[in-house]
Amino acid sequence: MDLLNDETYMRLALNMAGAASGQTGVNPVVGCVVVNEGRVVGLGAHLKRGEGHAEVLALNMAGTLARGATAYVTLEPCSHTGKLTPPCCERLIAEGVSRVVVAAKDPNPLVAGKGIDRLREAGIQVDVGLLGDESTALNEAFNKHIVHGIPFVTLKTAVTLDGRIATRTGHSRWITGEKAREAVHTMRHKHQGIMVGIGTIKADDPELTTRLSVPGIHPIRIVVDAKLAISEHARVLNNVADTIVIATEHADADKAALLEAKGTTVLRCGNGDRVDLTQAMMKLGAMGIGSILLEGGGVLNGAMLKAGLVDKVKLIYAPIIVGGEGAPSAFEFAGPEKMSDALRLNRVTMERFGDDWCMTGYPEGK
Amino acid sequence: MDLLNDETYMRLALNMAGAASGQTGVNPVVGCVVVNEGRVVGLGAHLKRGEGHAEVLALNMAGTLARGATAYVTLEPCSHTGKLTPPCCERLIAEGVSRVVVAAKDPNPLVAGKGIDRLREAGIQVDVGLLGDESTALNEAFNKHIVHGIPFVTLKTAVTLDGRIATRTGHSRWITGEKAREAVHTMRHKHQGIMVGIGTIKADDPELTTRLSVPGIHPIRIVVDAKLAISEHARVLNNVADTIVIATEHADADKAALLEAKGTTVLRCGNGDRVDLTQAMMKLGAMGIGSILLEGGGVLNGAMLKAGLVDKVKLIYAPIIVGGEGAPSAFEFAGPEKMSDALRLNRVTMERFGDDWCMTGYPEGK
Repeated sequence: MDLLNDETYMRLALNMAGAASGQTGVNPVVGCVVVNEGRVVGLGAHLKRGEGHAEVLALNMAGTLARGATAYVTLEPCSHTGKLTPPCCERLIAEGVSRVVVAAKDPNPLVAGKGIDRLREAGIQVDVGLLGDESTALNEAFNKHIVHGIPFVTLKTAVTLDGRIATRTGHSRWITGEKAREAVHTMRHKHQGIMVGIGTIKADDPELTTRLSVPGIHPIRIVVDAKLAISEHARVLNNVADTIVIATEHADADKAALLEAKGTTVLRCGNGDRVDLTQAMMKLGAMGIGSILLEGGGVLNGAMLKAGLVDKVKLIYAPIIVGGEGAPSAFEFAGPEKMSDALRLNRVTMERFGDDWCMTGYPEGK
Repeated sequence: MDLLNDETYMRLALNMAGAASGQTGVNPVVGCVVVNEGRVVGLGAHLKRGEGHAEVLALNMAGTLARGATAYVTLEPCSHTGKLTPPCCERLIAEGVSRVVVAAKDPNPLVAGKGIDRLREAGIQVDVGLLGDESTALNEAFNKHIVHGIPFVTLKTAVTLDGRIATRTGHSRWITGEKAREAVHTMRHKHQGIMVGIGTIKADDPELTTRLSVPGIHPIRIVVDAKLAISEHARVLNNVADTIVIATEHADADKAALLEAKGTTVLRCGNGDRVDLTQAMMKLGAMGIGSILLEGGGVLNGAMLKAGLVDKVKLIYAPIIVGGEGAPSAFEFAGPEKMSDALRLNRVTMERFGDDWCMTGYPEGK
């Protein structure tokens, strides 16, 4: 049994927020616990974009017991109007809450400490920073998108111990075991978009859906396909989820029209031979896509990494060695001359999925 | 405080044995604890080949208190004569020990349960198998060599996350950090031989010694060099430790004579273009080399793996990505067509050395 202290309640709020991960679209996940004289009287989490905020749901549950209570919130309560829901600060003040414990400030420039100021002006005691790093980690995608306007990209690849994603004949199914593949479906569920290159579509014809998705929140499928070489019969173009194909300005207009007639969105990014990936991320960000799971082949992975567009890397190692001669690599790009200039991952952690090992890290500067 | 039970004493014996790892040459490491009425009265470990066995040292310490005592031994006591030390069974019987707890049977065909039988014939209670797997793991090299006559080979390589051992320009120092490099010196210390290919000698001119070695037990340096292309000035040929160069029958006799005049041993293995690695392992085993740390480049690593001569793999991953184009791989060989036929590692464990991660596993069938 945990001690009934601030940390216990905040951890509960974080757990509730985490459970809604993948459900709130471009919004952050937030949890709230209201405690009155040592009794939990309200619980809430933001479950879906446009619906009730965590604080509101918890205050609704607390009713008159919110008066004099402490509210634990994983993210600074909002103070700004003009969005889908009214500001939570006013509701906390109106209900007579006497103390608010906030894990992390809202990185949104429209809020940025104003919520905390508003509460304090109203005479409420506000304590900021408890388990703040955990709250920030929970909303790393939201934090990136709200500040930079482009999606938070998680590169995920299943790989052999010698860094290969297929044998020398191109055979790749399966590298990892069942548990790791289940975990990938969870990862997909937690992102707004899933991105691959045309090479993957041609080789595997994947549907790119997630078995875990509930109706209406399938991640958007994104295909990088400079020349619009995709077959109109590709499974990724079916109507199970939305699809965006990213081509260059040169790609055939008739093919684009054909794809659009099937309900696919075609984006044009760049005038060269290859898609301008930075421009693509800006356009996707402007469309409200805040998080992308990149499941590319070696060329797309390498290009995204080199362009500095990858925020997080998840390498799932299967305990197999396939041999280097002719087997495609997870990162096909010409690297630096010196080992000390190689791209470094920080904050590396390791977890086990059955017989496979998942290494998670953040590229330097991210 | 641990409970003072059989397991506690056996764990102590295993810890003492483990501390002597790397000191006993081709002999197993063994620890012994003698306990009389709940008091530890004797401690011993086999510290150096040809010197006292663990049981003898512990019994010497116990003196008359060995009578009626229990002896915890990590490996079945020896019963055979004609080796460097007299059989321990007779000594245990002579001292009047009443019970012997044995972690693992001796895999040596000359012993193979005979020690246990001898003790029981003398009326001593013998319990076998407590922490047996841990004892077996401690002597995995000895167990291989005594049964098969060839060395136990641990392949160790420092590698990037994408499986590379150098950049596209061949630059490789350093991939891993200081802690991992220290750990490699400990690994070297625990093996009788360190093996590399001529490519590594030409590229890095390493001395292949270990900072940790005590005088007289430097691992033997082994260079696979089919054509005897090694420079007579290579640092690996200095007199800090012994060196064996393995060539084919075709290699130049004058060059061999030159190397031998410097104190280097030249072995001839195979009639083809390449060294016959299986024959090399048999010759090294017959010379009393029971354990080898293989620190090859991709070609030698690949050849040893494909020949089934690698018993254990240690991949030390630095958290860096160097890019696949032109960067040499840790395993340069043409692998299977299907992913399901890739070489699989079992019993995989992971440990952290600073920012680096060391994955240890055993090739299938080992």
